Amino acid sequence: MNQIQKPQDAYVQVDQVEWQEFPEQFHTGGVKWKLLHVSPEFGIWTVMFFCPNGSILLPHIHHGPAEGYVFDGILELRGGPENGGALCVKHGFLYEATGAEHEETKMLADTTFILQMVGPITWKTADGKDVNQTWSTAQDLWDQQTAA
Amino acid sequence: MNQIQKPQDAYVQVDQVEWQEFPEQFHTGGVKWKLLHVSPEFGIWTVMFFCPNGSILLPHIHHGPAEGYVFDGILELRGGPENGGALCVKHGFLYEATGAEHEETKMLADTTFILQMVGPITWKTADGKDVNQTWSTAQDLWDQQTAA
Amino acid sequence: MNQIQKPQDAYVQVDQVEWQEFPEQFHTGGVKWKLLHVSPEFGIWTVMFFCPNGSILLPHIHHGPAEGYVFDGILELRGGPENGGALCVKHGFLYEATGAEHEETKMLADTTFILQMVGPITWKTADGKDVNQTWSTAQDLWDQQTAA
Amino acid sequence: MNQIQKPQDAYVQVDQVEWQEFPEQFHTGGVKWKLLHVSPEFGIWTVMFFCPNGSILLPHIHHGPAEGYVFDGILELRGGPENGGALCVKHGFLYEATGAEHEETKMLADTTFILQMVGPITWKTADGKDVNQTWSTAQDLWDQQTAA
Repeated sequence: MNQIQKPQDAYVQVDQVEWQEFPEQFHTGGVKWKLLHVSPEFGIWTVMFFCPNGSILLPHIHHGPAEGYVFDGILELRGGPENGGALCVKHGFLYEATGAEHEETKMLADTTFILQMVGPITWKTADGKDVNQTWSTAQDLWDQQTAA
Repeated sequence: MNQIQKPQDAYVQVDQVEWQEFPEQFHTGGVKWKLLHVSPEFGIWTVMFFCPNGSILLPHIHHGPAEGYVFDGILELRGGPENGGALCVKHGFLYEATGAEHEETKMLADTTFILQMVGPITWKTADGKDVNQTWSTAQDLWDQQTAA
Repeated sequence: MNQIQKPQDAYVQVDQVEWQEFPEQFHTGGVKWKLLHVSPEFGIWTVMFFCPNGSILLPHIHHGPAEGYVFDGILELRGGPENGGALCVKHGFLYEATGAEHEETKMLADTTFILQMVGPITWKTADGKDVNQTWSTAQDLWDQQTAA
Repeated sequence: MNQIQKPQDAYVQVDQVEWQEFPEQFHTGGVKWKLLHVSPEFGIWTVMFFCPNGSILLPHIHHGPAEGYVFDGILELRGGPENGGALCVKHGFLYEATGAEHEETKMLADTTFILQMVGPITWKTADGKDVNQTWSTAQDLWDQQTAA
C-alpha cells in the first residue's frame, strides 16, 4: 500500500485573506475569489466569491454537488424566477446537484457567497470552448496569485 | 438496477427557518439548530447552529470531514490555543478532518456557525455512552420538531 | 491553506498479499482479510475478505455506502431470502446503502468478496458493545499484522 | 427541505446481465460494458468492462477517484512499465487518483475488469474533441441499450 497521511484539520481567518482576480475566461464584471480549502482525494474545492453588481458568471456545468451560502447580495440563478430559476439572497443556502447546468448567473447587487464544489466545473467560455476548472487548476492559480 | 432518481437542486432561505432545540443529550447551555440539507447517499448533513455564550458541545468524534463557517461569536476548539487547539471567530472557515476527536467545544460568546458533516458524529454523552448521530436521526428529529 | 499533496495512483497485486486474521471481536469462524486501499479524506477502506463455510460476520451498521463483489461462495445477507434478505453468490455485485443495518451475515460456503466501505462500521460485539471500526483502526491493525 | 428518499440497497447478478457495446467514440477493438450501479448524488458509476485482446481505451482524464479490480487479462496502463506505467493483470486492484490522465490504455489479452468511477471521465476522441462521460450519460445509454 502507498504511504498513508492522516488528513489534517484546517482553519482560515477569511477576512484576513486578500481577494484575487477570478479568471476573466469564466466571467465578466470583475469577480474576485478566495480559495479556502481543497480536498484532493475527491477533488473538492471551497471558494469565497465576491461578484460586483452586474457581474456575470458564464454558463457552466457542475459535475458534482455544490453547497453554498449567500452572505450578501442577489444572485440570479437559471434566469431568475420568471424563467423557472431562483433568486438567491442574503442568508440563502443553496445546493446545486451533480449535473446542474447553469446558464449565465447574474448578480443584481454586490454579492458575496461561499461555495463548496465537488469535482470539476465545465465552463462554456465566450469563444465557444468547454474548459474544465478543477480543484487542481484552482489550487495552481491560487498559489501563483498569492506567491510573494 | 434500481430505479434512478436524479438529484435535486435546493434552496433554503435560512433566516425564515425557525430555530429548534438541539438534543440536550449532546450539549449544555441551550444550543439551537436548523437542518438545512441532507445528502443521504453519503450521509451528509448541513446544520446551522446557534450556541449561546457559555454553552458547550459535548465531546465527539467526526467520522467524515466537516466544513464550516463562523458567522459570529467565538468557538473554542480542542481546549483553545493554550492547549494546542484553536479559537474560531467571526469570518472563520474551519475544516475538521475525518477522525477528528473533539473534547468539549465551548462558546466564549453567542456563536452562530454552519457545518456540513459527512457521516456520523459519535457523541460521548454525560452518562458515559457513545451515541451516533447521523443524517438520518438528524432528519427524523427535524421532521418531528417542525411538524405542524 | 495547509500543504497540498496530490493524491496518488496505486496498484496491488492482490494474490501476492498474504491473508491476515480479521479481529475475532467482529466474527466467528476464522474470517481473514487483506486491506487493499484506504482513502483517508472520506474515511474509505477497501478490503478483500475470505470467510470459511459457516463463518459469521457479527451484526453491524454501515455508516456510508459499501460496494462489493463476490468472487466465490455464498453470503447470506439479512437472514437470507426467506426473511426478506438476499443470497449473494459468485459474480454478485452488491451495494449496501448508508445506514444499512445487518444482522449476522452467514457464509453457506467458503466465500471470497471485496468490499469498499465509506466511513465507519459499527459492530455489535458478542459482549453487547458497539465498536466503531474505521479506515484508521483498520490501517493500524493492518500495519501491525504485516510488519516484518 | 426537499423530499428525502432513503438510499436503497442493491444486488446485481452480474453474469446474468448481457454485455452491451461500449461507445465507439471512446475506444477501438470491440469493448463491451455492463453498468452495475450509479450513485447520482456524487455522480458515481460502476462498470464491468470486457476488452478484447488488442482493444484500446482512448486517452482520458479521471475527474474523481476510480477503484477497480482485474478479473482476467492484461491491461497496459500509462504506456506500460517501460514508460513509467504499469501492467494490471488478473487479481490486480487498481486505484486511479482524481486528475489521473491516461494515454491510450491497451489490452494485451482479453481483459475483464470492474471500475467504480467518481465523477466524469473526459475522453479525448479520435477527432480531437474532449467529451465528458458521466453517470448520467452512462445511465441514459444503458437504459437505451437494455430497453426491450
